[in-house]
Amino acid sequence: MSNSEIRYTEMSEQGMGISVQVNSTVFHDESDFQTIDIIDTPALGKMLILDGLVMTSDKDEFLYHEMISHIPMITHKNPKQVLIIGGGDGGTVREVLRHKTVERVVLCEIDGMVVDVCKKYLPNIGCELDNPKVEKQIRDGVEYISTQKNQFDVILIDSTDPLGPGVGLFTEDFYNNVKAALKEGGIMVAQSESPFADEKEIKLMYALLKKVFPIVKPYVGPMPTYPGGYWSWAFCSKDVEPLSYIDENRAKEITENSKLYNLDIHKACFALPNFVKKMLGV
Amino acid sequence: MSNSEIRYTEMSEQGMGISVQVNSTVFHDESDFQTIDIIDTPALGKMLILDGLVMTSDKDEFLYHEMISHIPMITHKNPKQVLIIGGGDGGTVREVLRHKTVERVVLCEIDGMVVDVCKKYLPNIGCELDNPKVEKQIRDGVEYISTQKNQFDVILIDSTDPLGPGVGLFTEDFYNNVKAALKEGGIMVAQSESPFADEKEIKLMYALLKKVFPIVKPYVGPMPTYPGGYWSWAFCSKDVEPLSYIDENRAKEITENSKLYNLDIHKACFALPNFVKKMLGV
Repeated sequence: MSNSEIRYTEMSEQGMGISVQVNSTVFHDESDFQTIDIIDTPALGKMLILDGLVMTSDKDEFLYHEMISHIPMITHKNPKQVLIIGGGDGGTVREVLRHKTVERVVLCEIDGMVVDVCKKYLPNIGCELDNPKVEKQIRDGVEYISTQKNQFDVILIDSTDPLGPGVGLFTEDFYNNVKAALKEGGIMVAQSESPFADEKEIKLMYALLKKVFPIVKPYVGPMPTYPGGYWSWAFCSKDVEPLSYIDENRAKEITENSKLYNLDIHKACFALPNFVKKMLGV
Repeated sequence: MSNSEIRYTEMSEQGMGISVQVNSTVFHDESDFQTIDIIDTPALGKMLILDGLVMTSDKDEFLYHEMISHIPMITHKNPKQVLIIGGGDGGTVREVLRHKTVERVVLCEIDGMVVDVCKKYLPNIGCELDNPKVEKQIRDGVEYISTQKNQFDVILIDSTDPLGPGVGLFTEDFYNNVKAALKEGGIMVAQSESPFADEKEIKLMYALLKKVFPIVKPYVGPMPTYPGGYWSWAFCSKDVEPLSYIDENRAKEITENSKLYNLDIHKACFALPNFVKKMLGV
């Protein structure tokens, strides 16, 4: 019996990271924007890796996708028009479509290869990418958002980290355009990195968000395959406070078939440790 | 410039774990009970490792020690007599002593070498181990607890995993003895592993706890250096529900100088994802 094994290890600049035993590499290619890998692992099932950073895995993807979707969707009274920027794996699309109010989901993903690869190799995540309610815009979200005024009830920024193709999604201009693209009562949620990882990046992001949106509230949740095992999202709006409304009927429906979401989690996720409040000035 | 580096990597049986760059090994020895290592790392400062498993680190120890201590301490109306089983690093002792009501803390740690090593090499964690209110019992907690009846207001089981020297701390007999050692209105909190790691172990533990205590409520929090980055503790009592009382004065005092604890966190930590509720039958 051999003692050798293949491992995927992702280290932060600070010198800490996760390590996962690998069965095999299922897909590897360079798109016009980034390196795309799908690996198969005993612990987490299949994993999508972009430019050497874990994006999602079969085992824990529900944590991220439920948190980014259901918190804003259930806070909105009647979300019909939803825009997702990034999110080419399809997990956020899948969760958003569980809300019966939804008429149209625009998925604006810069990299068409991510969409194709996830439909093929991550069928549990990419399963709704061809749903007739989904309008795929394979193009730069920065450009797309600048053409949209007063169009969307909910906008979800399901981006990579603020480097590589995602960098334009972390600017004041971009957030201003998102604000203009939201209807009255609209909500934006953006993934906002780990409070345990790069303090400089997360502080900068919240400083920009607060310049643009009158309401900016972080919320948090566990995410084992992301740095620090703990992730944050920024709830932003011109006019809606996070816990000002909860659609009880949809909350009940969503809870019934969710691995994570319930009303207790919805209310609890806005509770922040002192060090996070201090870091983000909230 | 060399490309080589030393890494500490801790993998679960499932094939997932954390990896940390290492500056140096500060201490290494075998005690009568286990292998003890202190390593120095750029990301997490000094780390205590017992039998190849991370116990605590300078950077994130506050998360674990605040959660195991302040949730029960602030739920108790007047905690004077506190027992800690395990916890030889001193972090739980340090947090418990921040409550002015406390008259005596018994630290029952099987391995005296852990206490000595942490006082010397982890001074920020082991700083209160020689406080005059602390009575050190360097002996087996299983044996010690069987001699104590109706003695303690709060008992904290700050143990290693259910293997090695800690295995006797995960049995029905032990929990029965803890129950007998609690005064009226007493609370036990035990670290109860990660809901993302070994499902079999955590299920077994809660099944035993529920045989013994009428009130068994898990609570959760982030913990980057433990498996899954997400940890749980079991709040157990004969007569006290977790959120039935909060000592507002002590909560305020503790919040002022804590990196984690505040009242929002206290209330939020009992919110559990659906998969955790299902797993633990709560």
